[in-house]
Amino acid sequence: QEREPTSLKKILGLEEILNVNIWRASLAELLGTATLVFALDTIVISSIETETKTPNLVMSTMVAIIVTILLLATFPISGGHINPIISFSAALTGICSFTRAAIYIMAQCLGGILGALALKAVVKSSVEDTFSLGGCTLHIVTAGPQGPIVIGLETGQALWLEIICSFVFLFASIWMAFDERQVKALGRVAVCIIIGIVLGILVFVSTTVTATKGYAGAGLNPARCLGPALIRGGHLWDGHWVFWVGPAIACVAFAMYTKIVPHQHFHVLER
Amino acid sequence: QEREPTSLKKILGLEEILNVNIWRASLAELLGTATLVFALDTIVISSIETETKTPNLVMSTMVAIIVTILLLATFPISGGHINPIISFSAALTGICSFTRAAIYIMAQCLGGILGALALKAVVKSSVEDTFSLGGCTLHIVTAGPQGPIVIGLETGQALWLEIICSFVFLFASIWMAFDERQVKALGRVAVCIIIGIVLGILVFVSTTVTATKGYAGAGLNPARCLGPALIRGGHLWDGHWVFWVGPAIACVAFAMYTKIVPHQHFHVLER
Amino acid sequence: QEREPTSLKKILGLEEILNVNIWRASLAELLGTATLVFALDTIVISSIETETKTPNLVMSTMVAIIVTILLLATFPISGGHINPIISFSAALTGICSFTRAAIYIMAQCLGGILGALALKAVVKSSVEDTFSLGGCTLHIVTAGPQGPIVIGLETGQALWLEIICSFVFLFASIWMAFDERQVKALGRVAVCIIIGIVLGILVFVSTTVTATKGYAGAGLNPARCLGPALIRGGHLWDGHWVFWVGPAIACVAFAMYTKIVPHQHFHVLER
Amino acid sequence: QEREPTSLKKILGLEEILNVNIWRASLAELLGTATLVFALDTIVISSIETETKTPNLVMSTMVAIIVTILLLATFPISGGHINPIISFSAALTGICSFTRAAIYIMAQCLGGILGALALKAVVKSSVEDTFSLGGCTLHIVTAGPQGPIVIGLETGQALWLEIICSFVFLFASIWMAFDERQVKALGRVAVCIIIGIVLGILVFVSTTVTATKGYAGAGLNPARCLGPALIRGGHLWDGHWVFWVGPAIACVAFAMYTKIVPHQHFHVLER
Repeated sequence: QEREPTSLKKILGLEEILNVNIWRASLAELLGTATLVFALDTIVISSIETETKTPNLVMSTMVAIIVTILLLATFPISGGHINPIISFSAALTGICSFTRAAIYIMAQCLGGILGALALKAVVKSSVEDTFSLGGCTLHIVTAGPQGPIVIGLETGQALWLEIICSFVFLFASIWMAFDERQVKALGRVAVCIIIGIVLGILVFVSTTVTATKGYAGAGLNPARCLGPALIRGGHLWDGHWVFWVGPAIACVAFAMYTKIVPHQHFHVLER
Repeated sequence: QEREPTSLKKILGLEEILNVNIWRASLAELLGTATLVFALDTIVISSIETETKTPNLVMSTMVAIIVTILLLATFPISGGHINPIISFSAALTGICSFTRAAIYIMAQCLGGILGALALKAVVKSSVEDTFSLGGCTLHIVTAGPQGPIVIGLETGQALWLEIICSFVFLFASIWMAFDERQVKALGRVAVCIIIGIVLGILVFVSTTVTATKGYAGAGLNPARCLGPALIRGGHLWDGHWVFWVGPAIACVAFAMYTKIVPHQHFHVLER
Repeated sequence: QEREPTSLKKILGLEEILNVNIWRASLAELLGTATLVFALDTIVISSIETETKTPNLVMSTMVAIIVTILLLATFPISGGHINPIISFSAALTGICSFTRAAIYIMAQCLGGILGALALKAVVKSSVEDTFSLGGCTLHIVTAGPQGPIVIGLETGQALWLEIICSFVFLFASIWMAFDERQVKALGRVAVCIIIGIVLGILVFVSTTVTATKGYAGAGLNPARCLGPALIRGGHLWDGHWVFWVGPAIACVAFAMYTKIVPHQHFHVLER
Repeated sequence: QEREPTSLKKILGLEEILNVNIWRASLAELLGTATLVFALDTIVISSIETETKTPNLVMSTMVAIIVTILLLATFPISGGHINPIISFSAALTGICSFTRAAIYIMAQCLGGILGALALKAVVKSSVEDTFSLGGCTLHIVTAGPQGPIVIGLETGQALWLEIICSFVFLFASIWMAFDERQVKALGRVAVCIIIGIVLGILVFVSTTVTATKGYAGAGLNPARCLGPALIRGGHLWDGHWVFWVGPAIACVAFAMYTKIVPHQHFHVLER
């Protein structure tokens, strides 16, 4: 099957801005991201509150499960993005138009804020303080032996980690969801489980490998970082750009990779 | 396939009150809820009695498993509700008539009482006291340094948590069970497992995130809260309305969401 | 498909007593139950011997796994009962004849004795004393501050627990194995896993919820209680009838439930 | 179907060196191996950093998962090797030409270096020191009571372990991926999961069975050993040849085994 050359107009898809269905579908993105942020942040807080020696493991397992479930829940309505990284890379690789991606990302950001508000309503302010509302922090200010000190990761290192983890996320899981033949071969449930597990492992790895208190691990979802940062403010804004710029760079690198790599598995064809 | 406009008469389904099959099916709801209440409450007590640092994790895992199994067990007979939230939201979204939902909810309440009675028969009164029969409490009266004090969650906060958790429950799991295409794509077992897991995670999150002793976590099933409250009475009645009003608000919000969102996944259709 | 009214002769199935295949199949029941008793009792002993704070959890998990595996192993030969509760309720609900159930139960009892003998051959007598051969006890005689005292559960409470747990076992798991449509929908492996898990949870719950030393938890399998009682005797005979009468009552109640409930899921038929 | 005698020219496949698709596919091998090395090494570090009594179990589970996912991700593009052992044995058994295997192995080595560089960029130098960048070590120099001492495994023992583990890896998992009938019977996902699990078990076994500090377990992937050795140098070069020679011997032995064994499963044919 021949693909006609995609014009710029089609790539941008500006006419989709008037498509009411996209706006209705974006509601699923909004509520999905709100649910995700509320669930993720309560999981972060609960895991650390729990008296266990391996809070990171508990956290990662539950992140994997909740992400899988929410992707399955929103897939039939909006395509199951609930993450600006997925929407942006989907637009870059031609899965959906840039207009739709922009609408989705806006909805996801709103959802992130909604989720953070819902969380703020139910936790005590002391818990809110201790865990920064479960948000994405590079470093936190804590009481040291001689006055308050700042502990955490350097911004450069965090940016690198964000780029690498986002690329691994795209390369190891999203790639399968974008490739129609892969989705057909593996099935939708398997793909969503793989995306969830890869995210869970990246959360586990990024929080432990740096071995740095104050750094909350790779964000891997700018919308979920934006919500707590807006609601709680303060040190959550420090280096907040990292959680947007890192994934963006990874998305562009990933889009270039998908253009270079052969689209037909020649190995199979030869036989 | 065209859907004929559903008349009010059909929505209410008053003629179903004479359908003997519905009354027979409600027996499954009754016994299912009784089993659920007995199992849930013994799990709550056992988990806290067990000398582990992570009783919440143990509890949540078992809640997830037992709910999944009971849904699978009652599904072919009554549709597998065993929870007034599911019956009410099923009626609101047009999955079943309001009459049937009302009969089911009545059966579930009776089952909740039966389960609580069965539990009362096998535990010692000291265990019954300590754990409030495994019921839904907002706050408990406990011995403080200067006479008895009340510890627990504020009613307003508990109501918020109940609404948010019920909505997450409906949005992330029940939605899949209600959407015929989703059930077909995922399979009945997967849907029941997802419902069980989401409930388990919500129990874990709601009990730890508030970090408040005396609050037993989000109810997420009014019938299971009613049983122990009726049998044991006392402080279990304080704020009992929260466990009914919270889910009810969430059900209405969820029903509105399902009306707004596009019913056909246009993304797939376009290709 | 119409079912012809089953005559008493067919229900009793007295001619099956001459069917050599049933006797050969009962060998699988005998060896299955022997393996089960040996495995269960070593698991009980190992779990308590292991230096962990949660022996009950370890025990329950292993019970769930071993029961699942043995059911899968014996299913193609005898139908996978290895438990008088299953054989008796199968006869009551018309799954098999009373003659076959009686032969199976005899084989299971013999198997229980064989398993207890095998266990006695490999453990030291001190271990045998401490754990009552892993048998079903209501109370044990132990050294108190003023001479030997009896600790354990009251017989009435134990009977209630036995009835309720057996009914939950039948309602939540066996029901699925008996309903042909359920087995088709879920698959044989899933059904066996569910039976194993439900048994595991009931073991966990019944041992912890009573919080009583000396009570070994609900029996849930008279054949496994009979073996150690015969081999070891003594206090294992005290209240041994509870482990037979409790399940029997539950089986009758369950059989009545299956008669009342509608056999066709009318919900699905209406659509 | 008759197979024409494969000429040396076809086996070498020198003309494939000009095939641009193979070079483009090797990009997937390069990035796949980079992701693998980054993920594996962070998992090694994270697992040991985590305060758990069973770091080996955590490590093995995650190795199994990440290997499965990366094989699934790269399969449709390059055939999913991301391991010189697989490429080399594929060439030896005639699955692909030697030219292609050589190009792939080169890409994998470059990927290994890239992954090690990415890791070096995000971890602190203290972590880098302690864990040798998660590389393959036979022995490490550590501070003893009287000056620095060398602890670890003897080179001969390590070579044996490397040969045996590599052969088990090829025999128990890769064999299924190479046999077309097996892939058809089990499905691609199952085969990739089996390869992942076998690798995970070998990691677990090789790290615990030796019970030797300083030995990082069987390498089982020369490319992943090369990266950290090149970037970090020092004692990682000591005995580095073991991680190349061991698998190479195993590949040759495996290729001989596949020639001897009957190609048609006669057992099936007889029926």
